[in-house]
Amino acid sequence: MSLKIDAAELTRFLAKVFPQVAHDFKLLNLAENYLEVVLLIKEKHLRPGGTVSGPSMFALADVSAYLNVLSMIGPQALAVTTNCGIDFMRKPKANRNLICKSSILKLGRALAVTECQIFSEGELEPVARANLTYSLPPAHI
Amino acid sequence: MSLKIDAAELTRFLAKVFPQVAHDFKLLNLAENYLEVVLLIKEKHLRPGGTVSGPSMFALADVSAYLNVLSMIGPQALAVTTNCGIDFMRKPKANRNLICKSSILKLGRALAVTECQIFSEGELEPVARANLTYSLPPAHI
Amino acid sequence: MSLKIDAAELTRFLAKVFPQVAHDFKLLNLAENYLEVVLLIKEKHLRPGGTVSGPSMFALADVSAYLNVLSMIGPQALAVTTNCGIDFMRKPKANRNLICKSSILKLGRALAVTECQIFSEGELEPVARANLTYSLPPAHI
Amino acid sequence: MSLKIDAAELTRFLAKVFPQVAHDFKLLNLAENYLEVVLLIKEKHLRPGGTVSGPSMFALADVSAYLNVLSMIGPQALAVTTNCGIDFMRKPKANRNLICKSSILKLGRALAVTECQIFSEGELEPVARANLTYSLPPAHI
Repeated sequence: MSLKIDAAELTRFLAKVFPQVAHDFKLLNLAENYLEVVLLIKEKHLRPGGTVSGPSMFALADVSAYLNVLSMIGPQALAVTTNCGIDFMRKPKANRNLICKSSILKLGRALAVTECQIFSEGELEPVARANLTYSLPPAHI
Repeated sequence: MSLKIDAAELTRFLAKVFPQVAHDFKLLNLAENYLEVVLLIKEKHLRPGGTVSGPSMFALADVSAYLNVLSMIGPQALAVTTNCGIDFMRKPKANRNLICKSSILKLGRALAVTECQIFSEGELEPVARANLTYSLPPAHI
Repeated sequence: MSLKIDAAELTRFLAKVFPQVAHDFKLLNLAENYLEVVLLIKEKHLRPGGTVSGPSMFALADVSAYLNVLSMIGPQALAVTTNCGIDFMRKPKANRNLICKSSILKLGRALAVTECQIFSEGELEPVARANLTYSLPPAHI
Repeated sequence: MSLKIDAAELTRFLAKVFPQVAHDFKLLNLAENYLEVVLLIKEKHLRPGGTVSGPSMFALADVSAYLNVLSMIGPQALAVTTNCGIDFMRKPKANRNLICKSSILKLGRALAVTECQIFSEGELEPVARANLTYSLPPAHI
């Protein structure tokens, strides 16, 4: 399968569908089954101890993997997160944006399985890893 | 082990440590290894399609299980989420608060393992289930 | 929904479909959306240190939840495990059978979500917890 | 950190510690934080429908990630699996060995977090992905 939509269209889609949070995210690289998304860290993403909150990292993983899947099946489709597993491994720096690199491992008839790693900008070791599964609409193939 | 802190103190702790979001949550029932927390649904928790967003449910599960653990080991302690698995099973209603019921399954020397179910207020079938593991400080026993 | 099959039939089904391992398992209690299964611990289930191996516990959780789902949708149906999360919390005793108590949290059109706790026989605290999701055939409803 | 042990020693360790199953596995490639292990498929690993059973894949992921961790901290150490998440994505072929490629994402003071992909020999698309966390002994650093 090939991309159904390019990064500019995907960015417009994000702005339309998630107007409350779209300006927190920036799309970096889009390829078949692969997407990098930046979370622009603001005060609301932080938690005491000078780090980024768990829910902010979960949101980044979910937005990244979701847009990645939609880029492959088309943005009109309705994908729904059914399962997520996430390991928080290192404390993200509070003053750095986070980058999420997501890959689609399986794009099936009914389910898409994805995997992500999240990095503090400029660091080599991931702060978190996640796997997310999406339920896909029957019509997507 | 018994409770190190009561619900009123736990509420004050929440307000002090998470001032940005504390007013979104309300503690309902606290017992040994058990806590119920309500998420007061506001515009910011919703997503298109008239439902509550995944990150809002993740945040509710994390706050509930975290406060549950702190009620047992004392709020001065530093517990850190290391792993979460979450299944989104049903679409929450947009105009209902969410209730999270969390249980501690293991409170060990180094790790606490918890399990949650999330319900739309007034409903019998859970909208989500989650398991969360926390790394505990050496001093907590 | 109600049970499509009773415990005796479910035991015969297990023997027919998994002849290599059926004699390791014993069904205890079956109700709507609930099943208890015993793993009869033998030498092959153990690992050094006098405990039961992780794969043996995984197999017990998977058999229990799978039979639980089939009791609700009928044993002719083809359910496939798509996801499992498991926390190993305590060291099982080597000389005790294990009991797995599984519940179905959602029996949907396409997916069934289940949750299990595993106990050493006679103990109150679980040695492991697991969640398992099954993909269901279109025809099951 | 660098390897504490080479592949030949790791193979001998496997044979000594897991004599019942060691001959089912073959170590392929070992590097820092990386290990490939083959599961030599036999009758006992299969399930009806001409495929490999879930517990066999779980066992392969656990052995691979465990040996990977021990190669970094030394085989005398006692690592214990605390958590595993696994997605079964495609049906493995019954007449092909399985290869598991595991990477260590974090080797911390108390926990090691790993990630695996499992392939039918000769195939490009993974049949399963897994993440496994191990609790490490205090003395390992």
